[in-house]
Amino acid sequence: MKKIQLFDTTLRDGAQSAGISFSVEDKLKIAKALDAFGMDYIEGGWPMASANVEQFFREAAKIKFIHSKLVAFGSTRHKANAAHNDPNLKSIIASKVKVACIFGKTWDLHVEHALHSTLDDNLKMISDSVAYLRSKGLKVIYDAEHFFDGYRANAEYAMATLRAAADAGAFNLTLCETNGGKLPSDIRELVAVVRRAFPKMELGIHAHNDSDCAVANSIVAVQEGATLVQGTINGLGERCGNANLCSIIPALQLKLGYDCLLKKKLQHLTELSYYIDEVANLVPNDNQPYVGRNAFAHKAGIHASAVARMSATYEHLDPVSVGNERRILVSEMAGKSNVSFKAKELDLDFEKDPKAAGKIINAVKEMENNGYQFEDADGSFVLLSRKALGKYVPSFTLKSFRVSVEKDENGAIVSEATIKLDINGAQVHTVAEGDGPVNALDNSLRKALIKFYPEIADVSLMDFKVRVINAGAGTAAKVRVLIESKDSHSTWGTIGVSENLIDASWKALVDAVEYKLMKKTTKKPGRR
Amino acid sequence: MKKIQLFDTTLRDGAQSAGISFSVEDKLKIAKALDAFGMDYIEGGWPMASANVEQFFREAAKIKFIHSKLVAFGSTRHKANAAHNDPNLKSIIASKVKVACIFGKTWDLHVEHALHSTLDDNLKMISDSVAYLRSKGLKVIYDAEHFFDGYRANAEYAMATLRAAADAGAFNLTLCETNGGKLPSDIRELVAVVRRAFPKMELGIHAHNDSDCAVANSIVAVQEGATLVQGTINGLGERCGNANLCSIIPALQLKLGYDCLLKKKLQHLTELSYYIDEVANLVPNDNQPYVGRNAFAHKAGIHASAVARMSATYEHLDPVSVGNERRILVSEMAGKSNVSFKAKELDLDFEKDPKAAGKIINAVKEMENNGYQFEDADGSFVLLSRKALGKYVPSFTLKSFRVSVEKDENGAIVSEATIKLDINGAQVHTVAEGDGPVNALDNSLRKALIKFYPEIADVSLMDFKVRVINAGAGTAAKVRVLIESKDSHSTWGTIGVSENLIDASWKALVDAVEYKLMKKTTKKPGRR
Repeated sequence: MKKIQLFDTTLRDGAQSAGISFSVEDKLKIAKALDAFGMDYIEGGWPMASANVEQFFREAAKIKFIHSKLVAFGSTRHKANAAHNDPNLKSIIASKVKVACIFGKTWDLHVEHALHSTLDDNLKMISDSVAYLRSKGLKVIYDAEHFFDGYRANAEYAMATLRAAADAGAFNLTLCETNGGKLPSDIRELVAVVRRAFPKMELGIHAHNDSDCAVANSIVAVQEGATLVQGTINGLGERCGNANLCSIIPALQLKLGYDCLLKKKLQHLTELSYYIDEVANLVPNDNQPYVGRNAFAHKAGIHASAVARMSATYEHLDPVSVGNERRILVSEMAGKSNVSFKAKELDLDFEKDPKAAGKIINAVKEMENNGYQFEDADGSFVLLSRKALGKYVPSFTLKSFRVSVEKDENGAIVSEATIKLDINGAQVHTVAEGDGPVNALDNSLRKALIKFYPEIADVSLMDFKVRVINAGAGTAAKVRVLIESKDSHSTWGTIGVSENLIDASWKALVDAVEYKLMKKTTKKPGRR
Repeated sequence: MKKIQLFDTTLRDGAQSAGISFSVEDKLKIAKALDAFGMDYIEGGWPMASANVEQFFREAAKIKFIHSKLVAFGSTRHKANAAHNDPNLKSIIASKVKVACIFGKTWDLHVEHALHSTLDDNLKMISDSVAYLRSKGLKVIYDAEHFFDGYRANAEYAMATLRAAADAGAFNLTLCETNGGKLPSDIRELVAVVRRAFPKMELGIHAHNDSDCAVANSIVAVQEGATLVQGTINGLGERCGNANLCSIIPALQLKLGYDCLLKKKLQHLTELSYYIDEVANLVPNDNQPYVGRNAFAHKAGIHASAVARMSATYEHLDPVSVGNERRILVSEMAGKSNVSFKAKELDLDFEKDPKAAGKIINAVKEMENNGYQFEDADGSFVLLSRKALGKYVPSFTLKSFRVSVEKDENGAIVSEATIKLDINGAQVHTVAEGDGPVNALDNSLRKALIKFYPEIADVSLMDFKVRVINAGAGTAAKVRVLIESKDSHSTWGTIGVSENLIDASWKALVDAVEYKLMKKTTKKPGRR
């Protein structure tokens, strides 16, 4: 099996996505996750571009990566600078990486109209820059920007730029499809041309998705002889994104038999995809190939029944191979079996009540009409089911709460929450401050409960999400709050909906605690 | 130029998307939009499958389509029925269409394990069904389900099924990549095989996106001789969706020179994409190739300055050709040209201060480090720019506010906000209630300002979004609030960030009002 090198640029090109801004902390977390997954190269960014990237490399230098090599990005030297005086090349060296990836101009149009340089000088800029980095002991990947457009405009010159990089000691020539508009037939033809011209050189492909063909273009390039693929997790990137490694890796490995990753690593692909979205604070794309929530979801009755009998009939591969799972979407008609399935999954005990499923479905429907969703709130779903079956015994009752936020003219803010509860007949009145009103409420609730239910000391809140449901109503809109909690055994989600976001948060907080207190007796915790 | 037939199945396969359910009214609206756009075929659904589809065909029969032919879908006859007694074939005839599209089994595994039939009987089912529809005057497109998997499993049999359909009078053989997992190299090889075997037959391609290659697979099939492409608008469809016509059409027409649509129709592509999402009640995918809001958005400074000078340098085609537009994003990576472009767009006056852009960039970077983003907050961006240039004169100053939310044991909630402002030297102290704390704050602020600035009566809040930035910090996380406001002339976005969501909302509210008061003097309002 031919080895394909995986080059992740989530931290550099991925960070160019509209709406994304990674902190240094985020970048370190992502780099560790990519290393654990088994990426060969992790491109950390362009150190000259911002203090954030510089700091990332300083921190990353302290980490011992198991598998990955860290890469610093940059350009060829400025036309006015000697290589050893070029701030951009110096910043790469200062980043202390062992591998640099620098891009240079391939397209004559760009040399003249973007660099305002000459074709000859650009060749010198390429070879000087590569040679200088080599002289400092770095290995160099040369990114030929706009290779495909450049080749169409001036084939001879495009090839001369590659030759300059190769002769100066780059170990890899990566062909960049920078504008992202090329189709697989273009890629196939031109990668083959370069393959023939540089038979011993390692070639890479760097594709963008403007033509909706980035994945196909990357795969085709590998089939024509490229052995390094640059891309991002979930296809993050400017405009329509970069080539999506989550789609490329399983195709190369499972469908075409290339060697990309250890097989058991591939089973962490779905997890990695979710993790990156989480750090980037993006809503996962449910329809994403291989790793999306719907990627193996079957809606049509014909499909669902056939899949149940023989999965290959309507599935292109086994979802387990990429860490995903099959879902059968059940229509309203078949709601009962859905609920039964869910009840089983969550260890709900129907106690042979034949009407139990119907009662739960009615309760769910009513709540959904009010803006609730239980897909990510299994804690609240279990509590709701118990309420619907008359089995719910609250651990405490709210008498009242009062939350206040005050800001003075110096900008100092105090958030305070007072809560009055009835806990098994005892009146408990607590007050606490917090970082914002919801945190104050959370602190005050814990303060009230801890003496009666010491086990809540083990609960912490992992995630807090707010979504405006009917956004058109402006600041009077309905708000949905999702909270994810954990203890030492498991995690669970809870939900609250209200026109008042403090109240929505309160409802989700109460469910978070009630679920913890209820689940003491059940075996199987939460959804993970 | 070779004519390619466009076959839209948004109403049939698109309706299988998780989360979509089209009413008859929705379907009629979509059919009319597809006709106006110039689709050759509009597949309306499987009349036997539901009363909704039957009714759609009854209503659609009353519409005079300008360009499109309406198509009813179905399967080959059931093994137990004669064709003329098969309810499914009868329902197609009852739908009164002139063109039918029926699918049959190609894959021997399916014939045996899904139909529980024999290979010979399946061939008879195909030819009987096609022949019967032909005898009733319908033209027939034959969808060879699972063609590519079927061919790999039993090539001879797969070809025999196509032969049965062709011999019985189908005018088109469409090769369906039903499980969606194939790669362009598979498609290329097998379409060429069929092309050679049926040199005079019209061939079609029907691809799904499970391998993230549906668009590439469709394009490759056309390059190998298919002349009909089945797909959906925005790639709607089960699992990972169907082949996206919004990406296929411009590639075929603008990049490969096929004849799909009138050129001026293609300029309605973006509009059609948004319209279908609107009817389907889906949030448009900003990163969608060709038609997405970010498809021609430039964030990196290098790109932005080059695009400003010569768009071909970083754009694969002219956004106008598909009805889209270029956007320049303001961000951390922004170079001066992004800011200058934005300033021009927003009528910011730099008054020939050569350091102005630099000052603004520094201010933007500092704010972005604190979690701000200005991409959807042009109101706040304009205010920030004025602050950076020392041109900002606030219309009021906060002395203090106090927001409280109280809930009693009956569940009644009161949200109240008191605000103390200094407005041009006057001390103003107001209090108001609201539907939640932010609405109360909004009401109280308006109450304070209205006497001094009557024009704010014209401002209303359209949209309110909350995002938790560092979600991992639980209820102590940082929160970003985006508000979109409008008056009778325009809309504008503003942003606030804080660990306290009340304070974040306050900041966004203040900017919303300050921008309104500032823009009185400027010509061009907001971003729309």
